[in-house]
Amino acid sequence: MEVSRETDEKYMRLAIKEAQEAFDSQEVPVGAVIVSGGRVVGRGHNLVETLVDVTAHAEIQAITAAASTLGGKYLTDCTLYVTVEPCVMCAGALAWSQIGRIVYGASDAKRGYSRIGASLLHPRTKVTSGVLAEECEMLMVDFFAKLR
Amino acid sequence: MEVSRETDEKYMRLAIKEAQEAFDSQEVPVGAVIVSGGRVVGRGHNLVETLVDVTAHAEIQAITAAASTLGGKYLTDCTLYVTVEPCVMCAGALAWSQIGRIVYGASDAKRGYSRIGASLLHPRTKVTSGVLAEECEMLMVDFFAKLR
Repeated sequence: MEVSRETDEKYMRLAIKEAQEAFDSQEVPVGAVIVSGGRVVGRGHNLVETLVDVTAHAEIQAITAAASTLGGKYLTDCTLYVTVEPCVMCAGALAWSQIGRIVYGASDAKRGYSRIGASLLHPRTKVTSGVLAEECEMLMVDFFAKLR
Repeated sequence: MEVSRETDEKYMRLAIKEAQEAFDSQEVPVGAVIVSGGRVVGRGHNLVETLVDVTAHAEIQAITAAASTLGGKYLTDCTLYVTVEPCVMCAGALAWSQIGRIVYGASDAKRGYSRIGASLLHPRTKVTSGVLAEECEMLMVDFFAKLR
């Protein structure tokens, strides 16, 4: 299925809204939504500090929520929108979920899965990067500038 | 710190007990415990089917439980005992936790993180493999034989 840039940007804006919530809670600002058939079936933002749990990334929350909404563990017909390139842990989780498509905003040269190689994902998962990348990146830059 | 084979086997038996619980719940039989200062601070077994959640691996449960017990997200002074070699997702989670040591039983040629390379883990994490490997492996073999 062809998805327009407008549609991708619409859902990325919802992911950015999630990231803003993380930012406002003094969390590294990453947000995610999962969409299936034009409906948001899961969302989440980074809660690592709040939950004292390194596994509480935005993507993990969104995957768990989407599976709960859909009543099944496989997300083959879903698209994940996430503001920052997923890390290795999240790429591994997305592989298990067999998610249909991943759309991310900013790249993460240090922690992103693609420094390891696309083989971390499920072979049928499609990836689009750079959607509203500047906006996603600015949240991260602002956050880490505040910490200094 | 030097840890004896007897100590490793003692804790691996607790992980196997967790794996047996997974087995009894028709879950892929993987179990894990996390030990700090001679005390079990987290445990878990695979709950993917029960929770309808691909992220509900034994290691993820154990990491979350240990951080909760210890009141901090880093597990630098902890050892994870897990019956089967961690997957990419769990290796990524273990990297974020900066866990001190990983001890696993059976290798997993298809899904284990080491097919990708040890670089998935934190550089200071030590790894020991093959502890009670046959016993850990047999649970998996029995489980998949039952499915056929």
